[in-house]
Amino acid sequence: MIDYSKFYADRVKPMKGSAIREMFKRMADPEIISLAGGNPAAELFPADELSKIAGKILMTQPTLALQYGTTDGYPKMKDCAKSRAEKVGAYSEGDSIIITTGANQGIDLTTKAIINKGDKIIVENPSFIGSLNAFRTYECQLVGVDVDNDGMNMDKLEAALEANPDAKLLYTIPTFQNPTGTTMTLEKRKRLLELASKYDVLIIEDNPYGDLRFSGEEVATLKSLDTEGRVIYCGSFSKILSPGMRLGYIIGAAPLLEKIEILKQVNDVHTPMLTQLMCVEFMKKYNIDKYIEKNRALYGKKCQIMLDTMEETFPKGKVTWTVPEGGIFLWCTCPDFDGDASEIVDKCLEKKVAIVPGSNFAIDQSLKSNQFRLNYSSIAPEKIEEGVRRLGAVLTEIL
Amino acid sequence: MIDYSKFYADRVKPMKGSAIREMFKRMADPEIISLAGGNPAAELFPADELSKIAGKILMTQPTLALQYGTTDGYPKMKDCAKSRAEKVGAYSEGDSIIITTGANQGIDLTTKAIINKGDKIIVENPSFIGSLNAFRTYECQLVGVDVDNDGMNMDKLEAALEANPDAKLLYTIPTFQNPTGTTMTLEKRKRLLELASKYDVLIIEDNPYGDLRFSGEEVATLKSLDTEGRVIYCGSFSKILSPGMRLGYIIGAAPLLEKIEILKQVNDVHTPMLTQLMCVEFMKKYNIDKYIEKNRALYGKKCQIMLDTMEETFPKGKVTWTVPEGGIFLWCTCPDFDGDASEIVDKCLEKKVAIVPGSNFAIDQSLKSNQFRLNYSSIAPEKIEEGVRRLGAVLTEIL
Repeated sequence: MIDYSKFYADRVKPMKGSAIREMFKRMADPEIISLAGGNPAAELFPADELSKIAGKILMTQPTLALQYGTTDGYPKMKDCAKSRAEKVGAYSEGDSIIITTGANQGIDLTTKAIINKGDKIIVENPSFIGSLNAFRTYECQLVGVDVDNDGMNMDKLEAALEANPDAKLLYTIPTFQNPTGTTMTLEKRKRLLELASKYDVLIIEDNPYGDLRFSGEEVATLKSLDTEGRVIYCGSFSKILSPGMRLGYIIGAAPLLEKIEILKQVNDVHTPMLTQLMCVEFMKKYNIDKYIEKNRALYGKKCQIMLDTMEETFPKGKVTWTVPEGGIFLWCTCPDFDGDASEIVDKCLEKKVAIVPGSNFAIDQSLKSNQFRLNYSSIAPEKIEEGVRRLGAVLTEIL
Repeated sequence: MIDYSKFYADRVKPMKGSAIREMFKRMADPEIISLAGGNPAAELFPADELSKIAGKILMTQPTLALQYGTTDGYPKMKDCAKSRAEKVGAYSEGDSIIITTGANQGIDLTTKAIINKGDKIIVENPSFIGSLNAFRTYECQLVGVDVDNDGMNMDKLEAALEANPDAKLLYTIPTFQNPTGTTMTLEKRKRLLELASKYDVLIIEDNPYGDLRFSGEEVATLKSLDTEGRVIYCGSFSKILSPGMRLGYIIGAAPLLEKIEILKQVNDVHTPMLTQLMCVEFMKKYNIDKYIEKNRALYGKKCQIMLDTMEETFPKGKVTWTVPEGGIFLWCTCPDFDGDASEIVDKCLEKKVAIVPGSNFAIDQSLKSNQFRLNYSSIAPEKIEEGVRRLGAVLTEIL
């Protein structure tokens, strides 16, 4: 057999399958309660509505649904993305829109359009592993900035920019961040934009969870505060309609999006037509905001159950955690624990509960982490309670 | 406004929107007869069947259809891809399969897994612009090998490999090639594999049209003849079911596909679930080969109409053309014409018929080309006849 390793591009040589995915395999055991995933609540999917819509589209517009489409997206789907973005000020006159096959594709291709080997990207540390791994495939240098309970630490961001004046791109999930669940304050957002201007970097604002606020006050998107055209906004229908449909979008300055569109053309030509048409029809016939409202209420309830059970069962004084105002994750820290959270994860799997260790989300994954991520969106309330109880027992034993 | 050009990665700096796409924009005029596209025949899409299937899947398996799926593809969809591949010997024991969002994604991500900046890829010249542009985004060097009427010229391939012993990858569409419509003989395929072994290159076999033979004898796929695991096979449902569904697949050696799967994970996480489930159900409930048979018959008929009208209306002795045994394209050469085919294209657009000039498919797009591509799959027979008549009049005028 051929030794394939000599054929690998440098960018993939160090890459191994996602640790999260490996854990999912270990979790095939149906008795395991998973607080590890990032799935939205399936119980609310508007399946009946989408069933009727899909059937009808294929009867009445078969050629549109089944023939090749345009790379930038079906025009009415672009209007749908625009209408979602306009609600949070994320569309400006003159911006272009590209419909992407999930928001990840937008992040991947934006990076491909901007980053040469060795270029620097400023990121929150910890951050979403999917984006970090996408960045890594372009052989960039990741510069991490710590995240406080109210978002990225701005003094550390300034220090990072000063130390890396050649950084080209800044990536942030300002609202209900993955993995921490934290939201960047308005003041910090304004400062971030000032710093981006001063140090001349472009910004990717990744906002898949922004619609899922269940407490506190809305904070303006970076894109809405951006007067210079520095922000490339990545939106998603994964958490407000269906992740399996893979519908996302990018909004930003036209010249930049023209380059990204070429990269999309050679990547998947266009996003599948049927799912685009289904989203258009769903938003035309139904009030998607009412549907989102149901999700918000459910996630608020599930989050509260998780927090209450943590309060009750976690060893006192040994664990701190973020209290999210929306989104689907919260983040735990064991300040006095000098081991790695993977030890907690292993014990948890013995007790049939799954969580994700902090190192997964770190810029340097080889460092020890005393943190872990919990998800409350995807499973039933009684399972959340039982899962957290098991986790609490493990933490009481280990810490 | 920011000068975005300073932020562009080197890979996108020279890239402009596809010339084909630009032409499609000029073709918005509904009176234009297009022999330019690469669309399959919409009149045969099994829309009623897919309508029922989509509606039912969303009723009976809503969570499966709407929730996140796995990166490598829905297992039953992988079985469908495998069964298609097995018909042409393109699946070997131990191979892995990844379902891709169209075959282009497979080509893009395979290249990303193998090619470093400056690496060499051997390609047919002319070749499919979508693949050539995908390769270009990895800043590789393309080494072109001429295509004879019976496929890539093997002596020129050997010379190219000898002159470029560091080439890592060879890309070919051996069956009903885009744009030439030619098919590589069995002898040439065997020689190609010997040369690939001797010069130690991997091969991408792109086979989107292989099922669409309407005359002549089947020729074994490269993948079926490969005893060393050098061939990465890219298959597609675009030309045998629906391009708008964006369903393709890669089959090849497991270690290599493991790397490609990581790149897919950061690219679009997974291919949309509904379209995968629809394909599975379609292949379960209906005989896809019967459906393909209808396509073959239709394309054979349309191709013959095109050839007959060319024979009748093209200026005698001024144009030669390939006679495809399948697929959707044929390729014309004007041996004594020393201009560029774009002149013919412009005159054609005045007469409201669209064709694609040869330079689009060339490694060096700046060179003059006296060739052009015609498509016969996408429009009605009477339109083909009328379009070719108009083209014949233009050629009679210019040549």
